[in-house]
Amino acid sequence: MGAVIQNIVMIGSGNVATHLAEVFYWKGKKISQVYSRDPEHAKQLANKVGSEAIDDLFSLTTDADLYIIAVPDKSIEEVAGKLLLKDKLLVHTSGSVAMEALSGASLNYGIFYPLNTFSKEKGIDFSNTPICIEGNTTSNKEKLVRLGKVISGDVRIITSEERQIIHMAAVFVSNFTNHMYGIAEDILESHELPFDILKPLIMETAQKIWKHKPADAQTGPAVREDISTIDTHMEILGKFPEFKKIYEMMTKDIVRRRKTRLRQGYGGQSND
Amino acid sequence: MGAVIQNIVMIGSGNVATHLAEVFYWKGKKISQVYSRDPEHAKQLANKVGSEAIDDLFSLTTDADLYIIAVPDKSIEEVAGKLLLKDKLLVHTSGSVAMEALSGASLNYGIFYPLNTFSKEKGIDFSNTPICIEGNTTSNKEKLVRLGKVISGDVRIITSEERQIIHMAAVFVSNFTNHMYGIAEDILESHELPFDILKPLIMETAQKIWKHKPADAQTGPAVREDISTIDTHMEILGKFPEFKKIYEMMTKDIVRRRKTRLRQGYGGQSND
Repeated sequence: MGAVIQNIVMIGSGNVATHLAEVFYWKGKKISQVYSRDPEHAKQLANKVGSEAIDDLFSLTTDADLYIIAVPDKSIEEVAGKLLLKDKLLVHTSGSVAMEALSGASLNYGIFYPLNTFSKEKGIDFSNTPICIEGNTTSNKEKLVRLGKVISGDVRIITSEERQIIHMAAVFVSNFTNHMYGIAEDILESHELPFDILKPLIMETAQKIWKHKPADAQTGPAVREDISTIDTHMEILGKFPEFKKIYEMMTKDIVRRRKTRLRQGYGGQSND
Repeated sequence: MGAVIQNIVMIGSGNVATHLAEVFYWKGKKISQVYSRDPEHAKQLANKVGSEAIDDLFSLTTDADLYIIAVPDKSIEEVAGKLLLKDKLLVHTSGSVAMEALSGASLNYGIFYPLNTFSKEKGIDFSNTPICIEGNTTSNKEKLVRLGKVISGDVRIITSEERQIIHMAAVFVSNFTNHMYGIAEDILESHELPFDILKPLIMETAQKIWKHKPADAQTGPAVREDISTIDTHMEILGKFPEFKKIYEMMTKDIVRRRKTRLRQGYGGQSND
């Protein structure tokens, strides 16, 4: 079938490019080329996935089925501006960059956005990573959905507006959550206490969302409006003025959200 | 040996009381009695752990080795005020209530604080849950450490001040993190998008801390100072003024923390 994507060119060699190229390779796709400005980076990834390394976009093969731009958001437009792919299917993997950034580079384009967080020395389970698909035509969407299903059990066609919303929600649960971990790290370090004491709690807090809605899983002094504990914490936070502001704002908003949801008729269950 | 705690009275029947009573029972300890103001609650837990249910503190047995108060923080002082245990060992399980709240109830008292989050319908892995111990004497600390080791591989003697710091850090990584999940839930719900799309990302974000320090795992538009994406998000958040304030404050603080750590000579690696 003509619609099946078999040969893929990976433009980029960072975390997303690496994890994606590897999983496609493991699933039997051919990574025809890996491009990076840095020849060493291109080679490193190309060697892992039996591919040709290139460091010049003029050396791009013209007969792949799909060209994936997986570079930092701020470079997507610049890279796309250098491509002339005629009708070859072109996607980027970003949660926030507009699909139209690709419209000058090919007649066929779309989005292949794996909704997860990728780091260098840590493998990732693609099988349950949502793949968010957009395409400028129905046929392009279908091709990309089929490709997504090769690596993930959760492939969704979304709109550009939905992608923006999802990406922003992801910033809250991932970037901001990680900053919460970082704040705790700073507080503990400053008292010469080890951060690792929090790791089981961090895992359990994440795991709870599979059983409970976040609203129902909310615990702690804020949701209980335990003023005495809140006051103690605010006092301890005296030497961290920024963290104190965050503590205050989060506490207020937890109370506000609980009251709003109670008014809306949701249950207000609070554990421990 | 006289120092081994074998017979335990559980005062309370909520999430912490239930999970603790169960794990002690499974590990071969005897739960002599379970107390709750609500006779039904007392019975429910007592039946699970082969124990006697009581709903009156005057019926408390006098010959247990340990009395555990696992009730809401705000009730600990009140419950302790009703106990006259002479020299029987008494602890509470709270991260924030002072140990001295118990000093009127017995000559021997301490803290047995399991640092995790407990919910009703979800089991918990105690084997790696840190158990934070305080005691008013060395002997009481030793007894409690020995008991902690029966259920956990991570038992630590801490000071009251350290417990406050740890509990506050826990509020950031658990309560505030869960609120981040809640904010994402509200944003997605308001656009009729399913929250479940974020679950793999939430798990992966938590799992990353086993490989990377939070500072090194920080990703996203804030740490990249990607103004265009931040502006888009601020615009989308127009109809959620509270979330917009939180977004702004978190973004600023992520930038601030990164710059502070760079000045201090830490690496500033940022993934994806």
